[in-house]
Amino acid sequence: MENGGSNGDQEVSTSDAVEAFLADSPVSGEAVADSVAAFIERHRSSGNTAFTGRAGPGLSRPIVVVTSGGTTVPLERRCVRFIDNFSAGTRGAISTERFLEAGYAVIFLTRTGSLQPFSQMLPAADPPEVIARVAMLQPPPAVAPAEGSLDGKAVSASSSGGADADNVVIRPEQMAALARVLRAQQACREHGTLLIIKYETIFDYLTYLRLISELLRPLGPDVMFYLAAAVSDFYIPWSELAEHKIQSADGPLELSLKRVPKMLGELVNKWAPRAFTVSFKLETDQRILVHKASTALHRYGVHLVVANLLHNRKDVVTLVEPLGAAAAGAAAAGPAGGGAAAAVEDQAEGVRTVELRRPPLEHDIERLLIEEVAARHRAFFGKAA
Amino acid sequence: MENGGSNGDQEVSTSDAVEAFLADSPVSGEAVADSVAAFIERHRSSGNTAFTGRAGPGLSRPIVVVTSGGTTVPLERRCVRFIDNFSAGTRGAISTERFLEAGYAVIFLTRTGSLQPFSQMLPAADPPEVIARVAMLQPPPAVAPAEGSLDGKAVSASSSGGADADNVVIRPEQMAALARVLRAQQACREHGTLLIIKYETIFDYLTYLRLISELLRPLGPDVMFYLAAAVSDFYIPWSELAEHKIQSADGPLELSLKRVPKMLGELVNKWAPRAFTVSFKLETDQRILVHKASTALHRYGVHLVVANLLHNRKDVVTLVEPLGAAAAGAAAAGPAGGGAAAAVEDQAEGVRTVELRRPPLEHDIERLLIEEVAARHRAFFGKAA
Repeated sequence: MENGGSNGDQEVSTSDAVEAFLADSPVSGEAVADSVAAFIERHRSSGNTAFTGRAGPGLSRPIVVVTSGGTTVPLERRCVRFIDNFSAGTRGAISTERFLEAGYAVIFLTRTGSLQPFSQMLPAADPPEVIARVAMLQPPPAVAPAEGSLDGKAVSASSSGGADADNVVIRPEQMAALARVLRAQQACREHGTLLIIKYETIFDYLTYLRLISELLRPLGPDVMFYLAAAVSDFYIPWSELAEHKIQSADGPLELSLKRVPKMLGELVNKWAPRAFTVSFKLETDQRILVHKASTALHRYGVHLVVANLLHNRKDVVTLVEPLGAAAAGAAAAGPAGGGAAAAVEDQAEGVRTVELRRPPLEHDIERLLIEEVAARHRAFFGKAA
Repeated sequence: MENGGSNGDQEVSTSDAVEAFLADSPVSGEAVADSVAAFIERHRSSGNTAFTGRAGPGLSRPIVVVTSGGTTVPLERRCVRFIDNFSAGTRGAISTERFLEAGYAVIFLTRTGSLQPFSQMLPAADPPEVIARVAMLQPPPAVAPAEGSLDGKAVSASSSGGADADNVVIRPEQMAALARVLRAQQACREHGTLLIIKYETIFDYLTYLRLISELLRPLGPDVMFYLAAAVSDFYIPWSELAEHKIQSADGPLELSLKRVPKMLGELVNKWAPRAFTVSFKLETDQRILVHKASTALHRYGVHLVVANLLHNRKDVVTLVEPLGAAAAGAAAAGPAGGGAAAAVEDQAEGVRTVELRRPPLEHDIERLLIEEVAARHRAFFGKAA
């Protein structure tokens, strides 16, 4: 969740501040650029763009950039200490699975160590413990009585040789889950539909995000940005960081951190102005949620804000979009079943809201969320066609 | 590695500062106390303490407390942002495996998400990727020609039913490694020799460490502390933390952090004064390494400092101990083979140093390191017997 960087209640940063931040970043991102370029090439269509109905070459499937996890802010260049913005990355990881199911190619920009797609099908534990829960040692099969051995005892050279052998098998109760994980990974490999790019710092994240958005820019409305990462609010510019670890001298440690310039407006207006952009708003207070989301919508010009509350974000989300947007998804289908409430028009805020609830029998709310988001993206690129 | 908190070049904190820190900590640790008490009970011996040669009841095996990973410092009470002290936890995790092999019962005090014992036997990757590397989908076995079917074609209801079944098997090349992991975990479960306690914050860590050391105190010299965690130097007292997230108001963010009081002296002098205590010193400059380690040795009264340099810490470590300590391990055995150099006496620093190098054919340096450390612990409890 973008719980750190999307308060939306401050001035939009100027392009100058953004350019200064990126010029100060120590990250080049060349390898990332190469892998993104190859990914785009793979999904280019030589014939018509079937999924949009537009004539002429384009993509064989739409592309979504899902950002996930939280960015860090280093306190020294050879980073031992850093300020972290906690986010487990659950929303981004599960949304990625659902986007793949919905036919998207996904660029997953994720923090090292945060939740990965298909993880949620496995036991939540450290790697050695995961292995203990999905696999087990199995004794060698019991030796069948040898023919002609009336007392049932059999000594066979070949079977005794296996008595100490390592025989590890998958636990039967985990077999189906593991098969699903392996099939999902295999499908991604075969079709090249998932590109995972890992970041650690705010410098990595913003450098990569600009680079990716500029490479995707020529693809216009067929691209979606789904910005679920928790971006740091404050940082120390690289040029001001000490090379080595701050020594533990006497006295307190005083840190002065600058505001991270707001990149959302730049993304929407300059880096990828024709793409469909979804941002997130996480709050703890229900009363200000829609207002905060509406402010972000109007200030940065994103197409949709997914608003959620910390305590029930896995069960309820509210879609907030401009009144002028084409009705799509449950809003277009009229009074809704399947977990989506009817759209509500809020004239004061100038927005339409749709509340989504996790259907009781479903594992997560992301299937419904991605259905709704994808329907809006279809309406968006359909209008552009 | 204790790369954050063991510079050893500042004043020893008073007990007052330590008590004030712990009084301010929001962590109670009751569940931890219960599990440690049960762990001690499990390893209590009703007969003589065979491993020390001492008469009378004691432990059935020595206990070591291994600390690992880095502590965090929260910047708000409902923690979204925190300052992290990076440490992968490799030293602590592998040392734990070696201590288990050497007959110790291990209390592993570890940061959530840092490296766990037996992890290094598995592919280093996120959980879904680990699964992909150790397991694979297997097509159902080829159908053997049915008897009497001369053309070799066989259609069997039972075998065609299996064609779509989930059949996941362990990759043959990973079988031995997985069997080792599962056997090691099974041995720990059967003998109850590994207790894993997880921490996140500096408050958790220091509260748990004191609690554990006080519970182990009656066991005297049969207990070792092996303090490989990277402890934060600076923190914001809990009583000064805001309840909710610091809002992104205008202007810079100013943070003032206090020194974390040095606990090492308290541990050695008060919490567990009869235990054998090993601390770590990680530096980047070879020239000051032994001096820094010697200062820590003399100032806090630990029995052994494991000194290492950032760039070669997986291949070389230097043991630093007081000149007066009984010679043990390679130092006692004389001019050494097997990766340990002869002991060198440094009269100026008042220490003896022994340099250990990873034997070229071994996976890690920890087998040798733990052999040396355990030899010193034996000399220590042997003298106390």
